[in-house]
Amino acid sequence: KKWVTLRWIHRWVIMFMIGIGTALLAAAIHAIVENLAHLKFELVKDYLDHCAKEGCLYQPVLIWMAINVVVTMAGAALVTFLQPKAAGSGIPFIKSYLNGVKIPGLLTFRAFIAKTVGVVCSILGGLACGKEGPMAHSGSIIAAGLGRGRINFCAGKSCSLYDSFRNDHEIRDFVAGGAASGVSSAFGAPIGGTLFSLEEAASFWNQDLTWRVFFASMIACFGTNFLISSINGHPTKLSAPGLVRFNVFKYDLNFDLIEIPVFIFMAVVGGLLGALFVVLNYKLTVFRQKYLNKNWIKVVEAGVVSVVSAAIAFGLLVGINDCTTEHPSDHHAVTSKLYCKGEGEHNSLSTLFLTTPEGCLKALLHDPYGFHGPVSLVAFVCIFFFMGVWTYGLSVSSGVFIPALAIGAAWGRLVGIGVINMLPDSTHLQIDVGKYALIGAACQLGGILRTTISLTVILVECTGDISFGLPIMIVLMISKWVGDFITTGLYDMNVEVLGMPMLPFDCPPLTEDLRASDIMSQPLYTFKPKETVRNIYSMLQQETFCGFPVIEEDTSTTPRQIKLKGLILRHQLLLLLHKKIFCPPGQVQPRNVKLKDFRDFYPMYMKVEEIEISEEEMDYEMDLKPYYNPTPYTVESIFSLPRVFNLFRGLGLRHLIVVNDKNVPIGMVTRKDLAKFRVGSKRGIVKIEHLNIEDK
Amino acid sequence: KKWVTLRWIHRWVIMFMIGIGTALLAAAIHAIVENLAHLKFELVKDYLDHCAKEGCLYQPVLIWMAINVVVTMAGAALVTFLQPKAAGSGIPFIKSYLNGVKIPGLLTFRAFIAKTVGVVCSILGGLACGKEGPMAHSGSIIAAGLGRGRINFCAGKSCSLYDSFRNDHEIRDFVAGGAASGVSSAFGAPIGGTLFSLEEAASFWNQDLTWRVFFASMIACFGTNFLISSINGHPTKLSAPGLVRFNVFKYDLNFDLIEIPVFIFMAVVGGLLGALFVVLNYKLTVFRQKYLNKNWIKVVEAGVVSVVSAAIAFGLLVGINDCTTEHPSDHHAVTSKLYCKGEGEHNSLSTLFLTTPEGCLKALLHDPYGFHGPVSLVAFVCIFFFMGVWTYGLSVSSGVFIPALAIGAAWGRLVGIGVINMLPDSTHLQIDVGKYALIGAACQLGGILRTTISLTVILVECTGDISFGLPIMIVLMISKWVGDFITTGLYDMNVEVLGMPMLPFDCPPLTEDLRASDIMSQPLYTFKPKETVRNIYSMLQQETFCGFPVIEEDTSTTPRQIKLKGLILRHQLLLLLHKKIFCPPGQVQPRNVKLKDFRDFYPMYMKVEEIEISEEEMDYEMDLKPYYNPTPYTVESIFSLPRVFNLFRGLGLRHLIVVNDKNVPIGMVTRKDLAKFRVGSKRGIVKIEHLNIEDK
Repeated sequence: KKWVTLRWIHRWVIMFMIGIGTALLAAAIHAIVENLAHLKFELVKDYLDHCAKEGCLYQPVLIWMAINVVVTMAGAALVTFLQPKAAGSGIPFIKSYLNGVKIPGLLTFRAFIAKTVGVVCSILGGLACGKEGPMAHSGSIIAAGLGRGRINFCAGKSCSLYDSFRNDHEIRDFVAGGAASGVSSAFGAPIGGTLFSLEEAASFWNQDLTWRVFFASMIACFGTNFLISSINGHPTKLSAPGLVRFNVFKYDLNFDLIEIPVFIFMAVVGGLLGALFVVLNYKLTVFRQKYLNKNWIKVVEAGVVSVVSAAIAFGLLVGINDCTTEHPSDHHAVTSKLYCKGEGEHNSLSTLFLTTPEGCLKALLHDPYGFHGPVSLVAFVCIFFFMGVWTYGLSVSSGVFIPALAIGAAWGRLVGIGVINMLPDSTHLQIDVGKYALIGAACQLGGILRTTISLTVILVECTGDISFGLPIMIVLMISKWVGDFITTGLYDMNVEVLGMPMLPFDCPPLTEDLRASDIMSQPLYTFKPKETVRNIYSMLQQETFCGFPVIEEDTSTTPRQIKLKGLILRHQLLLLLHKKIFCPPGQVQPRNVKLKDFRDFYPMYMKVEEIEISEEEMDYEMDLKPYYNPTPYTVESIFSLPRVFNLFRGLGLRHLIVVNDKNVPIGMVTRKDLAKFRVGSKRGIVKIEHLNIEDK
Repeated sequence: KKWVTLRWIHRWVIMFMIGIGTALLAAAIHAIVENLAHLKFELVKDYLDHCAKEGCLYQPVLIWMAINVVVTMAGAALVTFLQPKAAGSGIPFIKSYLNGVKIPGLLTFRAFIAKTVGVVCSILGGLACGKEGPMAHSGSIIAAGLGRGRINFCAGKSCSLYDSFRNDHEIRDFVAGGAASGVSSAFGAPIGGTLFSLEEAASFWNQDLTWRVFFASMIACFGTNFLISSINGHPTKLSAPGLVRFNVFKYDLNFDLIEIPVFIFMAVVGGLLGALFVVLNYKLTVFRQKYLNKNWIKVVEAGVVSVVSAAIAFGLLVGINDCTTEHPSDHHAVTSKLYCKGEGEHNSLSTLFLTTPEGCLKALLHDPYGFHGPVSLVAFVCIFFFMGVWTYGLSVSSGVFIPALAIGAAWGRLVGIGVINMLPDSTHLQIDVGKYALIGAACQLGGILRTTISLTVILVECTGDISFGLPIMIVLMISKWVGDFITTGLYDMNVEVLGMPMLPFDCPPLTEDLRASDIMSQPLYTFKPKETVRNIYSMLQQETFCGFPVIEEDTSTTPRQIKLKGLILRHQLLLLLHKKIFCPPGQVQPRNVKLKDFRDFYPMYMKVEEIEISEEEMDYEMDLKPYYNPTPYTVESIFSLPRVFNLFRGLGLRHLIVVNDKNVPIGMVTRKDLAKFRVGSKRGIVKIEHLNIEDK
């Protein structure tokens, strides 16, 4: 009983450490990115201002491009060669992992380095991406490391602290906490972060786990707030709950009922644009998989994107010489005069392009009414949309949240300017332009990602104003519906393209006629309770299954009766082989394998080829009886697909033995067999797709 | 395929209607309660002011008591005699229902009347209760009615519209939406409402269901907002998202890091007081079950409470003659002069006692610093705590949210006054007293109810300020920990006392050694595929099980082989008997029962005694083959309790057949068998309790 209480406390302590670790990481990345980016853009600005007079504008553009290409390619190389699983925002991977998919290499120290250093490089390299998405992945890696109590620096070397939580189930719970902490510290959204983890992870809603996850994300949010406030110079004021926040509006966000139709119109636009984004990115992804699949090409592509980004930004700065005398909302913003001659005038686009995508988003939300002209905004939307599509899917560590929000904020601002101009006597409404930008941002995000409940909560928490949550929820819902009518969301598209065997929330409809016997994998590979080492070894070499039924044949009766005894897992067999738990027939088998050995092993199981077994030992026998699970879940072959599906989803199974009506095993159903069936809804018509999920 | 889409649309439409219905109800109750209560207290006030001069103070107290006792007893009689399940807040019932417990009469039209009219009576009767808790129950009833597409006005008469959703699973989904809508319209908390439903209902997180529930609660929140704003005279301004909101603070809620220790201290106090509340109420509940279990006594007790409430309130008003010249925060507040002589002076306690508990809460949160003196506050805390304990558990429709918040707000205000007085030069901090009241309210609520994630979100949404959410979350968590160290929460205590077979979130620890064979119900009652009507009839009469295995005996082999064929449910057998689906042996059985008949039946299954079967028919045979479920879930007898538990929880099962290793059924595990095992944590020590769950 004491042991139960101790474990309980230990779990809470680890969750606390996960929160702290994530907060430290978030604050560090924030400080590094903001300061270095400021230096970079100050440099570019100085050259721009200088050369606009001297006529040497080739200098700033070359410097800009050079910085971008070097930094971006460094980041891309890191990701591509160190751990390719660190590419992108990592959110589709984390969702799949929490859903129950095993993804080797996802939660390793290498992935951590590639992810965190990579995201700094991507942003400094001028790509259209944010540092928020990757925080979920980084937080998860921190959680997995703390949960296992061990970090593997390189092959072989590792430092092990405690081992009581080394099993898939516990680690998954910690990772849920880590992902939540990451989201929470990125957006200052502890509730949203918790929901983000749980909506994929929860096989059912476990209140104790929920509290622990919530605790971790609160600590992370609080810690990030404290650290960034300290960096800003007033540690006890707690002014910065997350890395990105929209709630610095100088006035109260209010809305009138008559504005709702405008918001709905914007939501429809957001849904359509979002679907376009997904379609274009899908085509690009397929193209990349076909033609750009060499590692060096991936690195070069990232470099090309960063150069093009710089070139286009430069072109717009020079081409649209939109001068303004208004002050930008951010006092630290880098503003270039360029060709603007007047006293106090500066180029309005410089607050959008001489900053990180995040600064750009903030500028669009908070800059005063007259700051950005319609022409600049239209140009910005087109360019940023195009760059966003191109950037997502590069082999760099990058998030899609911020670019999506920035695109939406830009066209939202356009709509706002239009509405305000259409109304008579509307000068007092000019402060509302930021509100339209915010709604536009929400619409665009909803259209691209098809927000779930958690994303809705995250956005509302980001806004910091509950009363304004209502229009945000409405536009998110409508943009999702519009987008879903045309394509799936960006993450779902990603998961599909990657071929992850992710189980949907519900069994697809119209599959009641399919039986367990129709979908199971055959032939079935089984072991006897006493099996020769040779059989085991060769079976593990030939087959990739993770579990094998153990059966006993009773040869005394006719017909022979086959009886299911249990299920043994691949990694158990590997450990038993490695520990040489076998003996010549007739002798007593050594029993020197303990639960601790299985834990020490976790999660780095060797390959079967790495186990050395002499030719003599091949004929030895292994008694599986003490090790197999005597009560595996089974279903009869006449069970319908929805019932099998519910078993998998409800219990978080990985394999299920199918038996005939005499309890004789005849096949296995695995996750992959089920994940093949997916309901696609295109243009309002429901259909069942049969996905092709490869073994990777 | 078209059918799937149509059903999908139909579900959304029903959810929409649920939201609208709940909003209408909430607005109606709000308008009725506020206006009538205002009239009542104006009347009392006029007499008070008049009689303070004339010396006829017996008049107002008698009038006050008379109104209270008549109205309260009317409400109590309604609940007690019409539908006792409508007593209390209904939240423990709704939680149990969503958890999977069948509660007859909970979602009927009678319960609706008793609940809604009852809560109006309780508040007008001056009980220390709120109208928010019952909204969850009322919303659920609306949802169940709309889901079934039928309302039963009295026995026999009913109006049936559509029948496609008449099964437990669909109705439970709608009820989840209804409960969420109720919470959402009560507190203006669409996200909190959604979580409230899902944390009990979700066997796993179903994204489509989540969106539908969220949609319903958004509509409810929006509708309530619109309706109440319209009543207040400015329909498009949307100023009232819920029935109760705290976000009318005139200044921004800010907090400094150095205030956190004070908040933590308050959380500990809240946890301790909350535990005391639960313990006292538990003793009272046990006492009531023993001695006050006659219906008329229940009604009388409610009357006594209401009279005592009025008497104490009157005593305090007269006894503590605390005069103030400050204006109350609510302009409509009823303020009595009583003995206050000065120009513009009035009795400060009158804003607390001459109003509904809700008005009292608002006064405590928002009244200016000097309004309530320490003596009044201490007296108020003691009295309201005592009345709160006494009121909860009466046979009236009442919520415990508001009284808990009011108690906490009062002592929170006390702490605030203390802190502000201790600091030097603190006049500018006086506006902070409302903040301390808010934190105190959260602490007290957390201590009494042991808030779950959903309650946390509800409170944060109520406050309307995300940045201030952090201290609220911290105090809720700490007060929960402190309270949990001493007792369980109020709702859990309630569920336990009621003997609901509610499954906890996790299997209790240390139960790995228990096998399915240890916990199953025996003996097992089974049917053969062809069974005589007499056997079926008498079995249904004698046993209360909801499901019976169907087995086939193969008498040709020795020993006889018994084989499990399927599972047939009690309500299926009842319908088959009722429709006379049987025939003399050898003849062809009529097949005139359709899926629609089962739906029409739902959910009012008759008792077996109501079915008339002649003596001749008793010898007829019924062929069960077309009706039983051929693929029931089964487990072997050696399955451990945690694995059985996970099956129940993950799949939402009600009964599970236990088979031996030859696939012969030997027993059944029901929900009740599992719910007996519950982990109790008292004073930090984990122990397993064996609950006594009766058949009711």
